[in-house]
Amino acid sequence: MANSIYSSQQLFQPCLSNKHCVPKKTNLLCFASSQLNPARSEVSFCTGTLLIPHPNKVERGGEDAFFVSNFKGGVIAVADGVSGWAEQNVDPSLFSKELMANASSLVGDLEVNYDPQILIRKAHAATGSKGSATAIVAMLERNGTMKVASVGDCGLRVIRKGQIIFSTTPQEHYFDCPYQLSSELVGQTYLDAVVSSVELVEGDTIVMGSDGLFDNVFDGEIVSTLAAYSDVVEAGFRCSFLEEISGDEANRWKA
Amino acid sequence: MANSIYSSQQLFQPCLSNKHCVPKKTNLLCFASSQLNPARSEVSFCTGTLLIPHPNKVERGGEDAFFVSNFKGGVIAVADGVSGWAEQNVDPSLFSKELMANASSLVGDLEVNYDPQILIRKAHAATGSKGSATAIVAMLERNGTMKVASVGDCGLRVIRKGQIIFSTTPQEHYFDCPYQLSSELVGQTYLDAVVSSVELVEGDTIVMGSDGLFDNVFDGEIVSTLAAYSDVVEAGFRCSFLEEISGDEANRWKA
Repeated sequence: MANSIYSSQQLFQPCLSNKHCVPKKTNLLCFASSQLNPARSEVSFCTGTLLIPHPNKVERGGEDAFFVSNFKGGVIAVADGVSGWAEQNVDPSLFSKELMANASSLVGDLEVNYDPQILIRKAHAATGSKGSATAIVAMLERNGTMKVASVGDCGLRVIRKGQIIFSTTPQEHYFDCPYQLSSELVGQTYLDAVVSSVELVEGDTIVMGSDGLFDNVFDGEIVSTLAAYSDVVEAGFRCSFLEEISGDEANRWKA
Repeated sequence: MANSIYSSQQLFQPCLSNKHCVPKKTNLLCFASSQLNPARSEVSFCTGTLLIPHPNKVERGGEDAFFVSNFKGGVIAVADGVSGWAEQNVDPSLFSKELMANASSLVGDLEVNYDPQILIRKAHAATGSKGSATAIVAMLERNGTMKVASVGDCGLRVIRKGQIIFSTTPQEHYFDCPYQLSSELVGQTYLDAVVSSVELVEGDTIVMGSDGLFDNVFDGEIVSTLAAYSDVVEAGFRCSFLEEISGDEANRWKA
């Protein structure tokens, strides 16, 4: 079905060049040559993060949690507390926050062996809070392989030369009920994780988030926002603005 | 944003059980324990194929090509000839067919080393026909790792327990002009391939095809078709029927 013969050089420029990849807190999640060993072709994340709670959950800081580590090529992870626990007088943020704290402390664990699925297993086993959460973990090898394990509907996109070249796919039992790691036996485990990997190249941009991002901001809007902003705070607030518009539209549609 | 606590057992049954995985030509692409070494937890593809040319291209057998191999855990590949070559009096099917023939003969090559990206490199280098094609190759390791390399907009879906858990993402320069391996220097190479992998489990179903499938049949329709038909010919013809409906709709919309 493909129709057109390609007859010019690549049309898209990398959305971020290396000059943006100074590892500072406000920078976008991006990818650059390691500064530690410039002679070898080794790579690592340059990371930036932004947590924007749902407007109704600002007081408690939201139900999402994350961690970033510079272990090996770098580790990034997001967990999203399942809000239905509030109906049982359980703070939905406790489970996701403890899960990420445990994962963060286990990153270098020998038994984890830099495997994101095993990290989820051990972090889940160590979590004592009541509740449940979706979770995604991505670990970058120095050779450019990014290994990903995900349970539920947190997600990840890899953007290369202005287009998404890799996406995770959410798992759910039915609408608004994602696969979830839980304090209860009926929940899912690391065995239910989708485990994948992708070979990254210098200049790739990785966007990871909860369904709060990906359900409300179209992939095309994420790509165009990254192209327009080089700073994670600016880009994040732009996405937050798009989420609010999307939410308003959805409410209007419901009404 | 996730709302509902999961409180029951899994709702979905595997879309195909092992009893369907008898390796016969008309069977669906599926995944089962190896019959050769039942004591070890090793896996391999059970494959079935169907090529349905575009109605306007039936006389020449269409412009898509594919190959299936049982080397190691199994290899599946699809190439889609770029139809724009017809305007230059070049048969668009020649390049895709030669590319797949070369790939098929190189599957066991030592230099390829069971790496789908290297297989694309060597098959492309060996192809002498004028033209260009999009291509995807998936190679299954006996331990369940499926490695995928793709240039352009051929695609692959992995369906587990009634839902898609892994998808490739198409690459294109602009609408209807995908990344493509070409006889001309301006085209893409194996270096432009998106290289990824996913850990499969027994019972997973893999659907691979050209954009002729994925542009015309929604993912949800692929999943529901697989759930309804256990035979690749039945399921394929059902998808073909959906493609025709989709095409009609598109034409009507254009008109």
